Amino acid sequence: MGSFTIDPAYVEKLIIEMAEHGSDGGTGVSRTVYSPEWVGATRQYAQWCEEAGLETRHDAVGSVWGRLNGSEGGKAFVTGSHIDSQTPGGRYDGILGALAGIVALKALKETYGQPRRTIECVALCEEENSRFPTAQWWGSRAITGRTTSEDPELVRAFSGETIAEAMRDVGLDPARIPEAKRDDIEGFIELHIEQGPILEQAGLPVAIVTGVTGIRHYMITLNGQQNHAGAFPMDMRRDPMAGFAEIALGVIDTAHRWGRPAVTTVGRVKSIPNGIAVVPGTVEFSIDARHPDPAKVEGLYAAHEGLMREVAARRGLELSWEVLNDQPPCMSDPGILAHMKAAAEKHGVPTMTMASGAGHDTQQMARIAKVAMIFVRSKDGRSHTPDEFSSIPDIVEGIKVLTETLYRLAY
Amino acid sequence: MGSFTIDPAYVEKLIIEMAEHGSDGGTGVSRTVYSPEWVGATRQYAQWCEEAGLETRHDAVGSVWGRLNGSEGGKAFVTGSHIDSQTPGGRYDGILGALAGIVALKALKETYGQPRRTIECVALCEEENSRFPTAQWWGSRAITGRTTSEDPELVRAFSGETIAEAMRDVGLDPARIPEAKRDDIEGFIELHIEQGPILEQAGLPVAIVTGVTGIRHYMITLNGQQNHAGAFPMDMRRDPMAGFAEIALGVIDTAHRWGRPAVTTVGRVKSIPNGIAVVPGTVEFSIDARHPDPAKVEGLYAAHEGLMREVAARRGLELSWEVLNDQPPCMSDPGILAHMKAAAEKHGVPTMTMASGAGHDTQQMARIAKVAMIFVRSKDGRSHTPDEFSSIPDIVEGIKVLTETLYRLAY
Repeated sequence: MGSFTIDPAYVEKLIIEMAEHGSDGGTGVSRTVYSPEWVGATRQYAQWCEEAGLETRHDAVGSVWGRLNGSEGGKAFVTGSHIDSQTPGGRYDGILGALAGIVALKALKETYGQPRRTIECVALCEEENSRFPTAQWWGSRAITGRTTSEDPELVRAFSGETIAEAMRDVGLDPARIPEAKRDDIEGFIELHIEQGPILEQAGLPVAIVTGVTGIRHYMITLNGQQNHAGAFPMDMRRDPMAGFAEIALGVIDTAHRWGRPAVTTVGRVKSIPNGIAVVPGTVEFSIDARHPDPAKVEGLYAAHEGLMREVAARRGLELSWEVLNDQPPCMSDPGILAHMKAAAEKHGVPTMTMASGAGHDTQQMARIAKVAMIFVRSKDGRSHTPDEFSSIPDIVEGIKVLTETLYRLAY
Repeated sequence: MGSFTIDPAYVEKLIIEMAEHGSDGGTGVSRTVYSPEWVGATRQYAQWCEEAGLETRHDAVGSVWGRLNGSEGGKAFVTGSHIDSQTPGGRYDGILGALAGIVALKALKETYGQPRRTIECVALCEEENSRFPTAQWWGSRAITGRTTSEDPELVRAFSGETIAEAMRDVGLDPARIPEAKRDDIEGFIELHIEQGPILEQAGLPVAIVTGVTGIRHYMITLNGQQNHAGAFPMDMRRDPMAGFAEIALGVIDTAHRWGRPAVTTVGRVKSIPNGIAVVPGTVEFSIDARHPDPAKVEGLYAAHEGLMREVAARRGLELSWEVLNDQPPCMSDPGILAHMKAAAEKHGVPTMTMASGAGHDTQQMARIAKVAMIFVRSKDGRSHTPDEFSSIPDIVEGIKVLTETLYRLAY
């Protein structure tokens, strides 16, 4: 029996036709969870699962599953990603991994028939928090039992409605969310676009992802003294803008000096009162710091916190912060990684290893299963924009690695 | 004939009663140009001028003048400041100088009778641009002929109405603005609160102001490349936030190193798109740089501009800026300054000299007259707030210097 083949035309058809659900001008896609566009996309996904001969179902939060039952039973190996998008995002972020799952399971079934172990593909309902700012990973959290039936009445959309209302609007009962919980998944593999420029810079189509970065988001407030920009001498000021500038420059420089894969970003800043001729009384800003190595990530946070305290004390500023998000690093399973490397070698797919600097559903799934990811090269490293692009040949290479890995795990 | 005396009770009465026009909670005052509160204040001012025996009139933009005709005729010496306020401001900024004029002229008239040279006090209609953002110095600009009859239909309030409409509402005809122009003023003296902490720090009630600072306002745009905060390595970023931080820290540090009276403020900043997990594509910010020395101010601006260009080039950022405001330094007249120093000495008023770091009507009046200013100590250096405060004893000391200076110029 020969090896499977992945049909580029089929892959391209799925991508193009799926992008019509939420099509937002040219290559843009706006498909938020529980929107009419999302409903169309999940129906489409389910239809393709059925056409591929998979046992198909929608779970209690609306994620769509396609299943190939194993002859031995036992825990399943799952592959997939999210079906929702940014507003607008592009045709690849998330959905590519969900579609790759159908392509892989279809190829495996057609080539090798029934597997020994159960394999499933999934289109997770929500990852981008592009409609409900606090609902990130709604789909994968439900699978791990971390979205309770109390949550939905508290989770509000940017436009005010609760996620419970949104669920009811699409025929889902928020009280049944706990039914989405799974305790029979052995491994979860997510294929995703890289969203960064590293593969492109390296001239490679595919990366095997050794882990997902640890992320901490700080919202920081620096209070000084608001003063007249002309009448108050420099030597008597307590200027939070000066303190902010020193901290922002310092934390960015720290991540530079640490080198890859450490990153630190100051994305948000607000000066109060924000007048041209007023020394601000307060500056509020964010720090996003990330490192995938559990042994190093706390050191990066500590370096940033130490600098903030030192600068604030020296400049006579009051410093406070809130941690809005704190995800520990998530290491890929060495066994799955070994299968991925062998798979890439067998199919002649040139790869490199890297850590993911972005957060993914994989981090949630790691609470209940072994995990690993596959990245496909992103043009110009771009994502969360209609301009995001990955080529069909690169995507096919990624799907080959995914399919062969599932074969090794399940057959 | 003995010297004049300044009655503290009269001074206090004028300040307290004037503060009722636009009273805004406790010690706050909100009195924008052409508002009902402003109308009440200008009528009050005119009434007090008349009670002091001054020839009283309202000019074409609503500034109120009290006049003591000189026996010799010729050009006049004028003292005053603005009658409008911030929203809310306090009881002193601007209005104190207008009231000091009444007190001084009244004391001179009562003590010495008719002067040789004409002296006038004035309550200028507008300085704070707290209602019309582009109308700053509406009163003093009209006196110098720099507010034309075309302007009023273009100048809009924060709430949308034109200043022409606002003028008509209070019985002024915008077409007659040119009639406010004066070409018969020899000298203009403005008494004002310091708005800074220098006198308080020095333990002195009054300063003789050698000049008003040169001011330049830049609005700067730094464009880089918007990227994912996790997936884009530090070494490949073109991060305008890093460039902004380096520039802000650098220009503030430059002013520190130059020392008094150089000041530089970064008051306004905007990150686009301002997301926690997004390397910004653009950062917009302001620089307010000031120096009162015509020989040095251009050097300060050049240092800032040089730093901006260097940082932007090194970091691969696109840099552009707009100069929103560019006031050259305004030097006080040496002759008037000499009279002020002699006046302070005669009345035993301890003074220091300083430059004004804030802009004032005096800069406008300098286009048509010799100018100088007197500063009165500000508590905690504060202004543009209901908390601004200057004590009656300090104010009386300042008015003594003003009155004696006018005496020396006009009698």
